[in-house]
Formats: sequence, C-alpha cells, structure tokens
Amino acid sequence: MSDPQKMAAAVETYLASFAKRDHNAVADLFAEQCTVEDPIGTDIHHGREAVREFYKMAMANGAKLTLEGQIRIVPPYAAFAFNVAVPGPDGNIAARVNVIDTFKFNEDSKVVEMRAFWGPTNFQTA
Amino acid sequence: MSDPQKMAAAVETYLASFAKRDHNAVADLFAEQCTVEDPIGTDIHHGREAVREFYKMAMANGAKLTLEGQIRIVPPYAAFAFNVAVPGPDGNIAARVNVIDTFKFNEDSKVVEMRAFWGPTNFQTA
Repeated sequence: MSDPQKMAAAVETYLASFAKRDHNAVADLFAEQCTVEDPIGTDIHHGREAVREFYKMAMANGAKLTLEGQIRIVPPYAAFAFNVAVPGPDGNIAARVNVIDTFKFNEDSKVVEMRAFWGPTNFQTA
Repeated sequence: MSDPQKMAAAVETYLASFAKRDHNAVADLFAEQCTVEDPIGTDIHHGREAVREFYKMAMANGAKLTLEGQIRIVPPYAAFAFNVAVPGPDGNIAARVNVIDTFKFNEDSKVVEMRAFWGPTNFQTA
C-alpha cells in the first residue's frame, strides 16, 4: 500500500524541484517502470530514464509551479491542481498554464503513472 | 471528438445541479453506458440509472459544490478541483471535502467515466 504522507511529500518535491531545475530529484520520484503523459493525448514517455530527459527539457525554460488548493490523496492516487508560470526572455512571466496532474503510486510510494490534464483553453499568454 | 465548450458546460451544470438537488440534470450529462467511481477504490456505479440513484443519495444532504480554479480540458477529458460544503442539521456547514473529479466524454459530449479523487486527508469537520 502506498503511504499517503509519502505521496504528499512526493508531490511537494515535484513542485519544488522545478524552481531548482532539478530533473534528477523529479526522476527519483518515479519507479523504474513508469509512464508520463503530459498532456493527455501526446506521446507517452516510458521508463525513468525517458522521464528524466523529459523533465530536463520541461524545466529548461525556468517554469515555476504553484500548487492550488489541497493535494487530493486516495491511494494509490494523488491528484493536484497547480499553475505554471513560464518566464520570457526578459525574465517576466510570458505565459501561464493551469494544470491538474494525477500520480499513481506503487507500494514503494514511487510514481508509476503520471497524467497531466491541460489543453489550449488552459494556456494564457501574459 | 468531444467538444471542449460542451465539456465545460457539462461541468458547470454538474456543479450547479447540486445546489438545486437536481439528480436528473446530472444523470442527463452521462451516457447510458457509463461508470462513476466516487471516491476511487469504492464500488463503481455502472449505467445511467445506477448513476441517477447515486446522485439522488449524494445530493440528499444539501451539499454545495464550489469550483476551485479553471476547468482543465484536454479532450476526451475534463478535470476540475472543487470543494464540497456539507450542512449539518442546524443548516451551518458541518464538514468540507476537497475533491478533484475527472470526466471522460464520448463523441456526443456525454460522460462515460467519472472518477473522484479524495480521501480522509481531504475531509474536514467544521
């Protein structure tokens, strides 16, 4: 059984790691066998090493993630709403994206499935 | 292809129907063949008539649902965060529940799958 406290801690680490551009910290949250679909409908990244590369790219623009409301936890799932602030070349916020992620955890409280819910209507330029 | 505008309208109707205790309006959002799992891990309700009865019971306590932030839409899915205010016998708020729902839609923009993400840590008595 995945542990609710560890699941919540994983989400907090996930969000905080973007500010530090620490893709390895995020990759460590995932099981070796895992999938990332971000957003839903796009090609799925399979396995921790593919996920590591995906987050390295995803963090390259300096995006900052801010949690909105409480993390919903119902083992083996966590779901959470957040917004992404994407800086432009001048350092000011160039765009915002509103996202809900779901994480599915294994018995070791590692993420085996991540799905990101966001589409064109959730993307706004500043 | 499900229609993003109709999907958003369905979510708005869903939330508003609780205030009116209109379980038929909610049942009408669902396809005849559908599933509702609320919360995840509990018995799944199969088919529109079972879903109608489920919502009749779910609305009996006069719960009010308030959307938190933007509805995330990525066809065929919508995901949204909200809180539920549950009144006590005296009419004051007795409990609050923080929830994230995901709806999966068919080509007619009817809901075929609803999953509710909330657990004990998302439930607070007033």
